[in-house]
Amino acid sequence: MSTPLTFRHLFGPGPSNCYPEAVAALGHPILGHLDPLFIEMMDSACEGLRQLWGTANARTLPLSGTGSAGMEAAFVNSVGPGDVAVVAVNGLFGVRMCEVARRAGAEVVRVDHEWGRPIDPERVASAHPNPKVIAAVHAETSTGVLSDIAALGRLKGDALLLVDAVTSIGGLELLADDWGIDIGYAGTQKCLGVAPGLAPFTISDAAFERRIQDPQSWYLDLGLLGGYVGAAGGSKRTYHHTAPVAMVASLAAGLDRVLGEGLDAVQARHAAAGLALQEGLQDMGLELFAEEGSRLPSLTTVKVPDGVDSAAVRAYLLERFSLEIGSGAGEFASTVWRIGMMGPNANPASVVLVLGALKEAIAKA
Amino acid sequence: MSTPLTFRHLFGPGPSNCYPEAVAALGHPILGHLDPLFIEMMDSACEGLRQLWGTANARTLPLSGTGSAGMEAAFVNSVGPGDVAVVAVNGLFGVRMCEVARRAGAEVVRVDHEWGRPIDPERVASAHPNPKVIAAVHAETSTGVLSDIAALGRLKGDALLLVDAVTSIGGLELLADDWGIDIGYAGTQKCLGVAPGLAPFTISDAAFERRIQDPQSWYLDLGLLGGYVGAAGGSKRTYHHTAPVAMVASLAAGLDRVLGEGLDAVQARHAAAGLALQEGLQDMGLELFAEEGSRLPSLTTVKVPDGVDSAAVRAYLLERFSLEIGSGAGEFASTVWRIGMMGPNANPASVVLVLGALKEAIAKA
Repeated sequence: MSTPLTFRHLFGPGPSNCYPEAVAALGHPILGHLDPLFIEMMDSACEGLRQLWGTANARTLPLSGTGSAGMEAAFVNSVGPGDVAVVAVNGLFGVRMCEVARRAGAEVVRVDHEWGRPIDPERVASAHPNPKVIAAVHAETSTGVLSDIAALGRLKGDALLLVDAVTSIGGLELLADDWGIDIGYAGTQKCLGVAPGLAPFTISDAAFERRIQDPQSWYLDLGLLGGYVGAAGGSKRTYHHTAPVAMVASLAAGLDRVLGEGLDAVQARHAAAGLALQEGLQDMGLELFAEEGSRLPSLTTVKVPDGVDSAAVRAYLLERFSLEIGSGAGEFASTVWRIGMMGPNANPASVVLVLGALKEAIAKA
Repeated sequence: MSTPLTFRHLFGPGPSNCYPEAVAALGHPILGHLDPLFIEMMDSACEGLRQLWGTANARTLPLSGTGSAGMEAAFVNSVGPGDVAVVAVNGLFGVRMCEVARRAGAEVVRVDHEWGRPIDPERVASAHPNPKVIAAVHAETSTGVLSDIAALGRLKGDALLLVDAVTSIGGLELLADDWGIDIGYAGTQKCLGVAPGLAPFTISDAAFERRIQDPQSWYLDLGLLGGYVGAAGGSKRTYHHTAPVAMVASLAAGLDRVLGEGLDAVQARHAAAGLALQEGLQDMGLELFAEEGSRLPSLTTVKVPDGVDSAAVRAYLLERFSLEIGSGAGEFASTVWRIGMMGPNANPASVVLVLGALKEAIAKA
């Protein structure tokens, strides 16, 4: 190609820039999806994901689609006609959960919360006497809000707890087994620092036993996918679909990188960068959107100052600094910015860069 | 990573080795999925796919999953309860089509053919008086057989013609508009010479008008995906899901490579390599599995000689030559080999390498 390549500083809600180890692995020689070397790599990725999820679930694997495919897999395998799904909604991805659950045939009980605030576990848990599933978003990408999943887990009763961890996995504490998460899905392109295209997924044995036996999706049927990653035990694999081998190699390398640094260190790095960014934004006189005490370190939401054109600022950042931040979601599209510091971008240099660039952009745009 | 990397000669049914341009693009700086530069890249990929499909369909795009996700998208958007889907079956992927159509709620009329032979267009077209969809596989990956889709297109009547082009796209003649294909899906990891992970997809305006309005899959809902790639016109994009940006960059680069060489030249290269391989295998005294006149150049099926252990030969090839060929599919798992010469591997050196290695493996294994 004669077109010059452009490097972007990716500080939007995702994708983030990737760990160099994850990028390098994309260029490695490709392997067949049934090659013993690939099976080792897939096993390594699944084991790494277990550590990031905080689970011992045998059925922990990267699904062959983006985070939204993970959401769809979570619902089509757990609810069908006649099943009640209680969904906690405090942002766009809660809304999407309701839509995906409806298409799976579930009776959806939607529990709305103000956007920018965390979910209320007691209100969610008491919304229906006998739901099959209670669903919630751990880290709402649309609002930058963290919710208390452990508290919801203590109140779930016989329901299966289904959790979106797209913007928390690999950067925030995530303890699926301790918190009582039965089914979880995530993405690779946020704190994990790997390109988008896979959905880290986990399901407990108990939830697997209670799954929909003949789900409407063949591609995302967990009953068939267990054999694909050898979750039934042994090294024998069943052909289901051709694994996206380059993406799995990249994920395995990214997980090695994160686990090599240490989960505690990685989480501390995200926490420090997020806090410094949030303090810096407030020092500039800006107002944060997410409620204090529930702010994600990985993704900060900040209100666009009165009289400032949100889109003009973002265009200025892209053109002058090759730097991307995100617009707000839904009704906050032009009144909120979303600034991610995820994966390799969670560091002090990012904080200085974003604050300086944003200051200039607001003044000049 | 301190583990040494292993290069494999990938002569199985897919993935194939990739074009160097497609590999290089995986390592390029990542772009945001709403970045103007990424939108240009996606537009380029969609336009390249139109040329490979032989279509002017506005809704031609890479779906964010593997070829099997493409199959699922094709059915969930075209059939639901009360709709009849006639499915031509002459191999594993026809069988899978029946299963996916059933899960979409369709009444499936399965028209079986002997594995190893092409479909009979007249028998398929007359199997039901009023199907909504007639589905067939252009190039059966499980048997190495090419079927006459143009003939089926002439007989389809009011039905929508739904075609699997996974093992033909980018290597064999494919003329969706001329042949009357209404809905088509494919994969990237065969003749296209790009890593697995995307499903090249096309749907005509007429088929889009007759689509299922509220499909059971949110992830694969073509009504929502049109805005995602700007198929509704203009440069405006609607957020649906985060595109797998690295894979799309790789696909765009792979398509540039193929179109730069020229489709006629690429097809001639696949035809020559396939023919030379098939002649060479017969010269070695081996018997081909697919019927003469319907043999795919991209994927050759050959019978395992009596007394030879299929798995031992494949293991020998892998260990001594780092060379992968495929086992047979279904009941032919241990009696047939599948040898792909696809993408960059469709060349005279591959023929010499595979024939020489196989000869030694049969003698020694």
